[in-house]
Amino acid sequence: MDSISLEPIGVVRSPITDPSRDEYWGGIQSTIELDVAPEAIAGLEAFSHIVVVYHFHQVAAGSVERGARHPRGRQDWPEVGIFSQRAKRRPNRMGVSTCRLLKIEGVKLRVEDLDAIDGSPVLDVKPYMTGFGPHGEVREPQWSRELMSTYFAPSECRP
Amino acid sequence: MDSISLEPIGVVRSPITDPSRDEYWGGIQSTIELDVAPEAIAGLEAFSHIVVVYHFHQVAAGSVERGARHPRGRQDWPEVGIFSQRAKRRPNRMGVSTCRLLKIEGVKLRVEDLDAIDGSPVLDVKPYMTGFGPHGEVREPQWSRELMSTYFAPSECRP
Repeated sequence: MDSISLEPIGVVRSPITDPSRDEYWGGIQSTIELDVAPEAIAGLEAFSHIVVVYHFHQVAAGSVERGARHPRGRQDWPEVGIFSQRAKRRPNRMGVSTCRLLKIEGVKLRVEDLDAIDGSPVLDVKPYMTGFGPHGEVREPQWSRELMSTYFAPSECRP
Repeated sequence: MDSISLEPIGVVRSPITDPSRDEYWGGIQSTIELDVAPEAIAGLEAFSHIVVVYHFHQVAAGSVERGARHPRGRQDWPEVGIFSQRAKRRPNRMGVSTCRLLKIEGVKLRVEDLDAIDGSPVLDVKPYMTGFGPHGEVREPQWSRELMSTYFAPSECRP
């Protein structure tokens, strides 16, 4: 299949600059500086949350995992495929996150809990609609519950 | 900012071929034919739902909306920005959907409720983890609740 070329619509400005940061994103506030017409976000303030699609720009193309690995290198967690986890060293290096929309100033979106480092190119912003959440009961393995228990924990809890 | 080039990792095979289909996706079963190593999806069966990032390949680049429009052309709903709705005629033409993972055969994922038409290139697959859902209370406008009331309704309900 042909490759697909995307143009960033904005950039993340975050206090988090360390590309290895992979926990304790809770409460972190950042700004999505959009490069779009103001009309393109008209009405967005009616939503409490947005879905942000962004690029893991600090992941080198050559370091992408195409097989399986232990999440976080944790040998006590199973070795699972790169598409069975949300690690950033994944083909196409895309992140998809739901975060709180705190405030809009012009075409700048102030958000909370966005797990994207400073400078991340933004490819799309969508309103979070309840109807797009999972339908029916959600099942997930123990390792991902353990991993997530600190992922969005407040940064003050960081050891 | 530089453009970003992505390589599809698979394709959607769906009974839905009409690009104008924008409702009644409930219960529709389709298959994501991945072009990845089997190890890349090891352990995915432990998750009930996946998040699929795909390309609205039938939307012509020239027809992309960059301002505001009435969702579905409905004059009784407010005119809102393209990033305040989930319409497919959006910059970068990317869809992000959470669907049920029914079965895995080799590197083919059988799914339900995926709102992607036949032939859609797939850019990423992630496991749905509860922790990545919205944090705190969700607020959304009346128009999006109305729109979603038929979006994932069973296809049998289609008028």
